[in-house]
Amino acid sequence: MVYITRREHFSAAHRLFLPENTDEANFEIFGKCSNPNWHGHNYILYVTVKGEVDPITGMIIHLRHVSKLIDEKILKKVDHKNLNLEVEFLAGKVPTSENVAIGIWNELADGIKKLGGMLHCVRLEQSENNIIEYFG
Amino acid sequence: MVYITRREHFSAAHRLFLPENTDEANFEIFGKCSNPNWHGHNYILYVTVKGEVDPITGMIIHLRHVSKLIDEKILKKVDHKNLNLEVEFLAGKVPTSENVAIGIWNELADGIKKLGGMLHCVRLEQSENNIIEYFG
Amino acid sequence: MVYITRREHFSAAHRLFLPENTDEANFEIFGKCSNPNWHGHNYILYVTVKGEVDPITGMIIHLRHVSKLIDEKILKKVDHKNLNLEVEFLAGKVPTSENVAIGIWNELADGIKKLGGMLHCVRLEQSENNIIEYFG
Amino acid sequence: MVYITRREHFSAAHRLFLPENTDEANFEIFGKCSNPNWHGHNYILYVTVKGEVDPITGMIIHLRHVSKLIDEKILKKVDHKNLNLEVEFLAGKVPTSENVAIGIWNELADGIKKLGGMLHCVRLEQSENNIIEYFG
Amino acid sequence: MVYITRREHFSAAHRLFLPENTDEANFEIFGKCSNPNWHGHNYILYVTVKGEVDPITGMIIHLRHVSKLIDEKILKKVDHKNLNLEVEFLAGKVPTSENVAIGIWNELADGIKKLGGMLHCVRLEQSENNIIEYFG
Amino acid sequence: MVYITRREHFSAAHRLFLPENTDEANFEIFGKCSNPNWHGHNYILYVTVKGEVDPITGMIIHLRHVSKLIDEKILKKVDHKNLNLEVEFLAGKVPTSENVAIGIWNELADGIKKLGGMLHCVRLEQSENNIIEYFG
Repeated sequence: MVYITRREHFSAAHRLFLPENTDEANFEIFGKCSNPNWHGHNYILYVTVKGEVDPITGMIIHLRHVSKLIDEKILKKVDHKNLNLEVEFLAGKVPTSENVAIGIWNELADGIKKLGGMLHCVRLEQSENNIIEYFG
Repeated sequence: MVYITRREHFSAAHRLFLPENTDEANFEIFGKCSNPNWHGHNYILYVTVKGEVDPITGMIIHLRHVSKLIDEKILKKVDHKNLNLEVEFLAGKVPTSENVAIGIWNELADGIKKLGGMLHCVRLEQSENNIIEYFG
Repeated sequence: MVYITRREHFSAAHRLFLPENTDEANFEIFGKCSNPNWHGHNYILYVTVKGEVDPITGMIIHLRHVSKLIDEKILKKVDHKNLNLEVEFLAGKVPTSENVAIGIWNELADGIKKLGGMLHCVRLEQSENNIIEYFG
Repeated sequence: MVYITRREHFSAAHRLFLPENTDEANFEIFGKCSNPNWHGHNYILYVTVKGEVDPITGMIIHLRHVSKLIDEKILKKVDHKNLNLEVEFLAGKVPTSENVAIGIWNELADGIKKLGGMLHCVRLEQSENNIIEYFG
Repeated sequence: MVYITRREHFSAAHRLFLPENTDEANFEIFGKCSNPNWHGHNYILYVTVKGEVDPITGMIIHLRHVSKLIDEKILKKVDHKNLNLEVEFLAGKVPTSENVAIGIWNELADGIKKLGGMLHCVRLEQSENNIIEYFG
Repeated sequence: MVYITRREHFSAAHRLFLPENTDEANFEIFGKCSNPNWHGHNYILYVTVKGEVDPITGMIIHLRHVSKLIDEKILKKVDHKNLNLEVEFLAGKVPTSENVAIGIWNELADGIKKLGGMLHCVRLEQSENNIIEYFG
């Protein structure tokens, strides 16, 4: 079993808030991330796939296929977008890094399986200091 | 003459557009950065100060003073904010990295002089691939 | 189960040695890290917490609380300090990265639990080439 | 149990291809990595060793011994070399990152054991976007 | 005057040698970079353009145009290629980082001018430890 | 004229203080860097040399010679040392990054000239946030 990881990145706006709350209550829970005028990040996304190495090609899966899948399933939907308003797979969720990572997992798991690997980890770095990992 | 640099960072939302243009015309000029629903970045800011080294203390200026100045004059105004809607020193400007860097220069130059140095360069990394430098 | 990581850093002096040994014997075991006049590092610290995502807020735990805990329990005690002479939670230990990481774990585990998460990993980078991980 | 990691790097040329295939068939499988005139990379190698911390020295193993072992067993054989033509431990294998990582594991595992630790992971970054991990 | 930089990367094989020299003489001059079986690198390329900021758009030049120019004029010719055998703009030159940087400058200068900027610097990182800058 | 840079690193202890001052007065000037029990850093050192490219070899100077010079003149004297107590070229100076960079310049300038280049810049990163550059 070998693990192979592809790194991608995207930039997006978001706001952390519960619509039923006052701005003060949201600030209490989410801090400055609840600014009603939005803010944003450069997200770095690591997608890790595990699988057996093909004894002939020496590969689990070609990373250009993983990269193409991530582009179609994720980057086209989130890059230079507003995570609260424009991303179907996050609809109704607070777009915390936790929820974004889980959403990305759900979008990718089937496609990775069709490529012949198994999704192992989605790692999302919202900044160099704040990192989320989800293993399904 | 020695050059000393302080690195800081902030996260913000923005949109590049000219209000008199249609969305199509804005997309033609600014590409996906013109998304009307905003997007955002983690900006890395490098502020470089030049000056003579004090022969007794061995310092030009203590970086904690530079850091405090940047925090008061810049970070409190831009971190987790919307650069189009909430930042007075960018009012009426398209918040491109060029304009943000020039705006930061104008906010800092006097304060740096009062601390005993001279502002030399404002460097703004909007992403690891896109970097702006302004020397006044 | 989701894993969330906060990155922090501190700078400190240390010396690796056994007081009952001669300088030569210490050099044999610890190499140039046993210099009696001290040396030091910029340590990068990653603290990983695991937990269930709250279905309402979309968070395990707000990272500003983790950051505040690390600041109080760790950074105030070690930043710009001498790890051999000034850090109570390392008293009587050789301040190798292994022992520093274990000491940090012991200082943080209870506080993380009170915040509603579980400490999963303390990762300490003594330099870009030398890294320690401790999972409790 | 503590995990300690040493980071090293080397530069090498390689080509991904199956000798029985036409260039077109190789391009179909391996993409531009099959260029018959070779290409190359700066590889970053992380070797992770696990073990108990010696209660006296506070170390699992001194990283300079791990570093020396990696230098002798790996770097001398692959740095500034052609992975297809000059590396005995890769003979007959397509030098994908998967196979290189597995080959490095096999070269190091015994030596690490003799040093008193257990090899836990070989991580190979072929570029900042493409990463392989092998756990034996 | 503002300076804007685009970061790109490519991977290539090369060999440093003078064809009239013996292997020993080449090794004397170029060290292990003269290996007759090639080796290779991940090159990081920074292209810096200077210009006046357009008072309406707030941009010197849109970086996607710079990026497209670099892709056409440079990356398509060097990425996953052999710098000695396959790159026309390096023909007859020893492909040191110095010569590669100068070659890239010559390929880009006119195109940057047509885009409305002036090429200021080509910076080429052959590894994290070895960097070349050329200002024309 | 081309500029070539070599990156190296070292770890050292230091303390910023004026011996004629009280601890309080030193703290007022130097902050926590004046801790009497020392602290330390991982310093990253960039040495930039400028020169004409040799039309035959395509090099200004081989970086392995620069690297060897830095090792002999600087790293052997400062790595894993105490900058206040053990470094002759800093004797009588407060070991601020400014003074360390100037000291390194003075140690290297002649040797670089003998190698056939001209020292252009000494850049010293005391941390990822604090950087000094000296151009002689």
